[in-house]
Amino acid sequence: MSELVSVNGAIFNPQEAKISVYDRGFLYGDGVYEVTRSYGRVLFALEDHIDRLFRSAERVNLNVGFSKDQLVKELYRVYDAANQDDIYMRVVITRGDSGGKINLDPNSSQTPNIVIFIQELPFFSPQVYREGQDLITSTYLRNSKKALDPNVKSGNYLNNIMALGEAKRLKAFDAIMVNKDGFVTEGTTWNLFMVKNEVCITAPDGADILQGITRKHLRDLAKTNNIKWEERFFTPDELKKADEAFSSSSIKEVMGIRSVDGVLIGGHGKPGPVTLKMAEIYKAHVKAYCQKHSEQKKQ
Amino acid sequence: MSELVSVNGAIFNPQEAKISVYDRGFLYGDGVYEVTRSYGRVLFALEDHIDRLFRSAERVNLNVGFSKDQLVKELYRVYDAANQDDIYMRVVITRGDSGGKINLDPNSSQTPNIVIFIQELPFFSPQVYREGQDLITSTYLRNSKKALDPNVKSGNYLNNIMALGEAKRLKAFDAIMVNKDGFVTEGTTWNLFMVKNEVCITAPDGADILQGITRKHLRDLAKTNNIKWEERFFTPDELKKADEAFSSSSIKEVMGIRSVDGVLIGGHGKPGPVTLKMAEIYKAHVKAYCQKHSEQKKQ
Repeated sequence: MSELVSVNGAIFNPQEAKISVYDRGFLYGDGVYEVTRSYGRVLFALEDHIDRLFRSAERVNLNVGFSKDQLVKELYRVYDAANQDDIYMRVVITRGDSGGKINLDPNSSQTPNIVIFIQELPFFSPQVYREGQDLITSTYLRNSKKALDPNVKSGNYLNNIMALGEAKRLKAFDAIMVNKDGFVTEGTTWNLFMVKNEVCITAPDGADILQGITRKHLRDLAKTNNIKWEERFFTPDELKKADEAFSSSSIKEVMGIRSVDGVLIGGHGKPGPVTLKMAEIYKAHVKAYCQKHSEQKKQ
Repeated sequence: MSELVSVNGAIFNPQEAKISVYDRGFLYGDGVYEVTRSYGRVLFALEDHIDRLFRSAERVNLNVGFSKDQLVKELYRVYDAANQDDIYMRVVITRGDSGGKINLDPNSSQTPNIVIFIQELPFFSPQVYREGQDLITSTYLRNSKKALDPNVKSGNYLNNIMALGEAKRLKAFDAIMVNKDGFVTEGTTWNLFMVKNEVCITAPDGADILQGITRKHLRDLAKTNNIKWEERFFTPDELKKADEAFSSSSIKEVMGIRSVDGVLIGGHGKPGPVTLKMAEIYKAHVKAYCQKHSEQKKQ
């Protein structure tokens, strides 16, 4: 069984996996989640994803119901049942339900529900990696961290969906989102970088963004590889005048950006040298990580 | 069976009602909903709720999968199965699922899921109606309509949940929410009114609010009863200096507000005369509506 779902520990075929309609994830999007992938049989940067899941949960006062170590074991138990290399894994933890009653009060539910999805990695055309993504700037502003913090990876994803839907209507690959002050924040499911005079520039941690794990690894890699790195606000106009631009995500890794709102970035029509360098050192880093963890697992 | 759930037309006991974990409501809060109640066997102001549900759906480009007339029939079919006076009804329509695949693109799902909940009305202590609610001003800002429009009644409810949770931690009854400019918007599940010099004042339609149906009926009733009505922005400070304050909701109807952040409104310690008048004329209006609709049903 290569694709499966675990619901509170019981494993199902995807078509048979169900949850109570009283689950607060279903009623309110009242849950947190993480997505990672495996390379071979190693779930890459799992400790980072677990840390972020717990941080998201803490910020919305949600009881995860596991220790970090227990959750790692549970994820690998479910993964082992799938018995498949190179997979997509999503873990969703909701605040549970209120015992067959609808009640908005978060205290009405004490027992979380945990759902773990394992499925094939989504396919992205090699052409997009070769030529870069064509993006739009969404007219939907990114949620403000003072209202619904994008740095909580929660089940409230309608903001991102509206932006992605807008991109698709305009035949674009995806959308970038700005905040109320007109500064670029991130994409719908990924962090955003521009390159100007060989400096990688991304919105600061405190912006209305999810602090991506791939972004964090790229920051560390930039340091060890003497690539200049800066975190500051910038506008879509500045982005359009950049030399290069790229996105980062656990699933898509580093992917070049060809155009934004029809404006070709850097006049390239293909990923620039810093983008290609970042993609290359990230791949090498993942390989080294997975080799190390694979050997540890065998011992 | 007084409490039940219909999932895509099939009726279940609440404990047995389930939905696919791939449903976009569960994964992303990607759905819209309405809540109404019956008086006797009449679902009050159902046409208003249906209109608003379709408007919410249209704004997030979600296909409801029913005509308005079909949906009214379906709601009454499910309600008849419950065979119970004076109930709470919630209808949730999600964008469905992507056929056992996780895919954020809203176009990946074409067939909505519809879930109808019928349960007992929640209990609110007569003491709260007699003495008024004690509220706090939440530190969480209300979602901005430029990011996630509060006038779309969607499954993204974490913003409201955080505010309600904050109120509960502070032993308050509920919370009011302000926008980024510091103006009062609404409560976590209800609209807010202050009374100053016998004028009912509420945030304008264009504010970051859900345009409540009870609020709309109160506006019409104010007009026919010569009660002065104004829609404008006001701050929590102005609210605290008001003569009276009250909330409106389909379930709680008109409920007085005793205090905000520990400040007694109007020095009353109980609902003021305009609040009591609004509560009274609303009840009379509901009674007349239900009598009329009950007679129409018999014909």
